[in-house]
Amino acid sequence: MPKMRISVLRLGHRGERDKRVSTHCGLVARALGASEIILCGERDEGTEKSIEKIAEKWGGKFRVSYSSNWLKTLREFRGIKIHLTMYGEPLMRVVKKIKKRGKKILVVVGAGKVPGGVYHECDFNVSVTTQPHSEIAALALFLREVFGSQSYEKKFAGAKIIVTPSARSKIVEKNKI
Amino acid sequence: MPKMRISVLRLGHRGERDKRVSTHCGLVARALGASEIILCGERDEGTEKSIEKIAEKWGGKFRVSYSSNWLKTLREFRGIKIHLTMYGEPLMRVVKKIKKRGKKILVVVGAGKVPGGVYHECDFNVSVTTQPHSEIAALALFLREVFGSQSYEKKFAGAKIIVTPSARSKIVEKNKI
Repeated sequence: MPKMRISVLRLGHRGERDKRVSTHCGLVARALGASEIILCGERDEGTEKSIEKIAEKWGGKFRVSYSSNWLKTLREFRGIKIHLTMYGEPLMRVVKKIKKRGKKILVVVGAGKVPGGVYHECDFNVSVTTQPHSEIAALALFLREVFGSQSYEKKFAGAKIIVTPSARSKIVEKNKI
Repeated sequence: MPKMRISVLRLGHRGERDKRVSTHCGLVARALGASEIILCGERDEGTEKSIEKIAEKWGGKFRVSYSSNWLKTLREFRGIKIHLTMYGEPLMRVVKKIKKRGKKILVVVGAGKVPGGVYHECDFNVSVTTQPHSEIAALALFLREVFGSQSYEKKFAGAKIIVTPSARSKIVEKNKI
């Protein structure tokens, strides 16, 4: 499998209303191996900062940025563009295709109703189940299928906090770097 | 693999603040094959109803209920109790164990800080990555590992709305039952 670099484009962030859901999207993106999240919609530096702060503490290189023009960002992206929705092709079929082709991937997740243009601008519309659920879950499942179950064991360089898995204890290492 | 029945226990719901995240937990639970969600913390009939309404429209048998005493619910549950956290045993190791043993499973997901007792009452504390991310994603990934990728194709009996996966179109069937 070629090494993949995944960016996440979060559409239509609506300030206070989406603070937590967008933060969860950012943290899930990072934890499961994506390289960056680009937030669109209302500018919300609080959400950007809270994702950045966690990334800084927990290590790795994860980038958070804002785009005031999602369509431009989408059009200018050089790589495979994938829109996670309820109406697309089955997830596993698309994952098979992109694993062969993919190096750079942009994953688009919406908040609320997504502009129709997204469906046409993307190379794949991918349905993560055909049921209503959560863009956070859809993103997590997509990343899991692309990177495989080893993404659960991903290590992050330069972490100030490291958790060691344990059945009955909280084992946390804090590094003063 | 023995047929499994999974219940989700959502701890510490805090009214307005957790409305969307708890709703996402409920919808993810349903979409990926769990049988019910039990909400704890502040009673919030709005959240209960919004999950129920979607379950009714989209089919299947998914139960939503409220428990004012999570400890009692946890103690009285007959089956394997699993707590999703950042500090537990690695996900894949635990999934292997419960696939052999499991019939009835209770999955516990917290909001905010989880009472220490949860760690001791549960048979397994499971870490879905050792990174901070999202209880919605953790739940989705857990269900995916237990039920396998075929859970993306799950059909729901008696649905009033059915989506047919499609690369470029929204194909929605509405049944007047």
